[in-house]
Amino acid sequence: MKIEIWSIGKTKEGYLQSGETLYLKRIKNYHTAELVLFKEPKTGKSNASQVKKLESEVFLKSLQPDDYVILLDEHGKQFDSVGFARQIQKWFNQSPRRLIFIIGGAWGFDSSLKMRSNFEMSLSKMTFTHQMVRLIFLEQLYRAFTILNNEPYHNT
Amino acid sequence: MKIEIWSIGKTKEGYLQSGETLYLKRIKNYHTAELVLFKEPKTGKSNASQVKKLESEVFLKSLQPDDYVILLDEHGKQFDSVGFARQIQKWFNQSPRRLIFIIGGAWGFDSSLKMRSNFEMSLSKMTFTHQMVRLIFLEQLYRAFTILNNEPYHNT
Repeated sequence: MKIEIWSIGKTKEGYLQSGETLYLKRIKNYHTAELVLFKEPKTGKSNASQVKKLESEVFLKSLQPDDYVILLDEHGKQFDSVGFARQIQKWFNQSPRRLIFIIGGAWGFDSSLKMRSNFEMSLSKMTFTHQMVRLIFLEQLYRAFTILNNEPYHNT
Repeated sequence: MKIEIWSIGKTKEGYLQSGETLYLKRIKNYHTAELVLFKEPKTGKSNASQVKKLESEVFLKSLQPDDYVILLDEHGKQFDSVGFARQIQKWFNQSPRRLIFIIGGAWGFDSSLKMRSNFEMSLSKMTFTHQMVRLIFLEQLYRAFTILNNEPYHNT
């Protein structure tokens, strides 16, 4: 089983890129994981709801029927870090071919993608830039593996 | 009124330092703000509860009676970004001399500092490294000012 983190658009800020690279490398000590950044669709003069739809279509087109899909959405279920680690273990137990976490753009997800998804989770009630969400999520994923392996990173 | 963000220990990761500098600069377009990093107390072989106490003492010694003190603690009140902006406005209306946000170390805050504080807020139920909390908090503070000024950053 492979973990993939999907998002749209390159990480523009160099400092965030460095952080992503750092945590991806750490995560790979535990599990195969990849950050997949899709090309932004041409949105032209689209309004928020149209942009959301176009972005969600980019993701939908690349999904396969046996992918387990988790959307990161501020209205999704909140976990604490230990709870998130336990939930990851549960998803692992279901052994999907791919466990895909999708980080939406500024306008969130279209209902078409919400319908297809298996789970919605939230990192915070607060709105972060989606580029910063990538870093925050990768750090939590790394933390989850250290928790599942009883390693001392959590709480240091 | 001045905003100060207090924490212990230098930011070790260069990429997080770059992010902090970026958002501090952006915040200063709206309001006087400073990130104050205190020297780590000598903790030797102290256990978690002793470290917490020593760190909280560092903060307590530097507080003045008319400071308004907000602790960032995962068990504090959660806001969404718009709610946090509104709350900042309420704190501004009280015109304290300094509005001080304190980011604790790995073990959180001692009860002595909790007693002195005026408010406890949480960025997430999840545990982040306290160095990453600095970046996340600065971004939310910047976002709050753009919200209060009806500027287009929020949701982009």
